[in-house]
Amino acid sequence: MRETAITYRPIGVIRSEHDAAEETPIQPAAEVFPEFASGLRDLEGFSHVYLIYHFPQAGAPKLLVKPFLQDMERGVFATRAPSRANAVGLTIVELVRRDGVDILDGTPLLDIKPYTAKFDRFETARNGWDELDEETARRRGRRGYTSP
Amino acid sequence: MRETAITYRPIGVIRSEHDAAEETPIQPAAEVFPEFASGLRDLEGFSHVYLIYHFPQAGAPKLLVKPFLQDMERGVFATRAPSRANAVGLTIVELVRRDGVDILDGTPLLDIKPYTAKFDRFETARNGWDELDEETARRRGRRGYTSP
Repeated sequence: MRETAITYRPIGVIRSEHDAAEETPIQPAAEVFPEFASGLRDLEGFSHVYLIYHFPQAGAPKLLVKPFLQDMERGVFATRAPSRANAVGLTIVELVRRDGVDILDGTPLLDIKPYTAKFDRFETARNGWDELDEETARRRGRRGYTSP
Repeated sequence: MRETAITYRPIGVIRSEHDAAEETPIQPAAEVFPEFASGLRDLEGFSHVYLIYHFPQAGAPKLLVKPFLQDMERGVFATRAPSRANAVGLTIVELVRRDGVDILDGTPLLDIKPYTAKFDRFETARNGWDELDEETARRRGRRGYTSP
């Protein structure tokens, strides 16, 4: 099991545009390659979807990371930092629209899944520490996905 | 980009036990291999975590699937069916406890991430169709993760 290699291939790419002047992120665009486009049928039935992607510049995996604005090391699996054993990224975006976009480069997109109130919306009793970790800091005040 | 292969290796395994008599699922156990154990530090700060895994018997990828109890085909990315281009599974579990378990075989675990109210709990406007799809049906009435 430990030596099992699991290989994925991107189904598309994600790009987050930023307004250069304001550094204001704009709703990200996820492009699915044409050969996978029919798999998107009915996705508009959901207001929110998960995007599962691969952090393109994750760096070497670390088991302990020092989250942004924090002075102590945390276990990487208790953070959303990119430098994880498998650099899988996960984000929830509001599905604003489906249309054609043209992206040549970007973050490799591995999967899309529907997000539903019934199965994905939980009442949490504990939400970790108050300080933001690296990923949440990047996403602070931002709507939807922003590029890792 | 399309030809980019992304290779992951399991960080552990997931096993769902079922009561044979009642077919009642029990809270799943996720075992992280010892070499990754220090990455779990601080995870108990969260009441809920994501488990990201690989569907072990996903079958051939399909772009259209007929969800359980439905008579029509849906785009696979609008379902949680296993037969996706990249057979990534995602579930949210309540973190009941951390302790030692001994699992020799099971579903390959790729990643663990904290689930937080701030970043993962969304008010949804649309939740797809009412009928349950294949994955939700398996999880119906069950607490936390059940084996794919």
